[in-house]
Amino acid sequence: MTDEHVTQEPQAEPEEQVDELTAAIRERDEYLDALQRLKAEFDNYRKRMARDQQELAARASERLVRELVPVLDDLERALEAAAEHEEAKLEEGVGLVHRSLAELLAREGLVEVETNGKFDPHSQEALLAQPSDQEEGTVIQVLQKGYKLGDRVLRPARVVVSQGSDGQ
Amino acid sequence: MTDEHVTQEPQAEPEEQVDELTAAIRERDEYLDALQRLKAEFDNYRKRMARDQQELAARASERLVRELVPVLDDLERALEAAAEHEEAKLEEGVGLVHRSLAELLAREGLVEVETNGKFDPHSQEALLAQPSDQEEGTVIQVLQKGYKLGDRVLRPARVVVSQGSDGQ
Repeated sequence: MTDEHVTQEPQAEPEEQVDELTAAIRERDEYLDALQRLKAEFDNYRKRMARDQQELAARASERLVRELVPVLDDLERALEAAAEHEEAKLEEGVGLVHRSLAELLAREGLVEVETNGKFDPHSQEALLAQPSDQEEGTVIQVLQKGYKLGDRVLRPARVVVSQGSDGQ
Repeated sequence: MTDEHVTQEPQAEPEEQVDELTAAIRERDEYLDALQRLKAEFDNYRKRMARDQQELAARASERLVRELVPVLDDLERALEAAAEHEEAKLEEGVGLVHRSLAELLAREGLVEVETNGKFDPHSQEALLAQPSDQEEGTVIQVLQKGYKLGDRVLRPARVVVSQGSDGQ
């Protein structure tokens, strides 16, 4: 559009300068147009992202909720067995629920904190130190399991640590 | 902008035209600069969003996993009670696990599908139709609970529907 206007202009001025002006105006208009379009695109993208993020968080927990529904079913069956004093069925049911939930959590990346060997202050919490024939600083008992998700410690293992047998 | 320039053009003296060229070049450079900066900003934003989204999904499931760890603890205590044939403790434990999990899922927005009254094909699945003294099309038995998350049916309730008492 701009080009047409400008090139129709009277040729009274030195041709070179007109060409230069024409080119500058054309480029200016192209950049402005590109700038406005990019701004609009960016705005839309930002809006879409805000929506997407809410949905993404909702979907991530929805997936887990969906997987937990059968666990809830199994628990309810176990409760029914309990109400009817069918002990074998109750025990079996609890075993099943435990396996399902443990597997589900493992798929999400949950792993137990290791407790074999030396006490590790990053993933373990020493609640007690006791004399023992194990080397000093060795974990001798686990009071509560700890869990990690990837590298992150969700809960430290609560342990008893050996003081060694020096004192005895 | 373009129009103003163009309409001033015919009367332009050489000097004015130089000014006009200078102005057009300055504007062109400003727009180009703004365009390049916006592009860079957009690129960074896109990259950050890609990272954020992964993290967001991870955080959403991490939150749930974290809440499920105590449920797993309770289940393990119930299993220990089962192993030691402490039936009362086992039953109590299963009740506790059920309550914890049901409450956790309710907080996530899980609700049971209603099954009082008329059969609802959107949230229920009729596995059987049986003659009964209930009005035709009434749900008379729930074979498996259904669940909704918000408006979405995660699983329809599986029900038996009354055929009415006409046939009898």
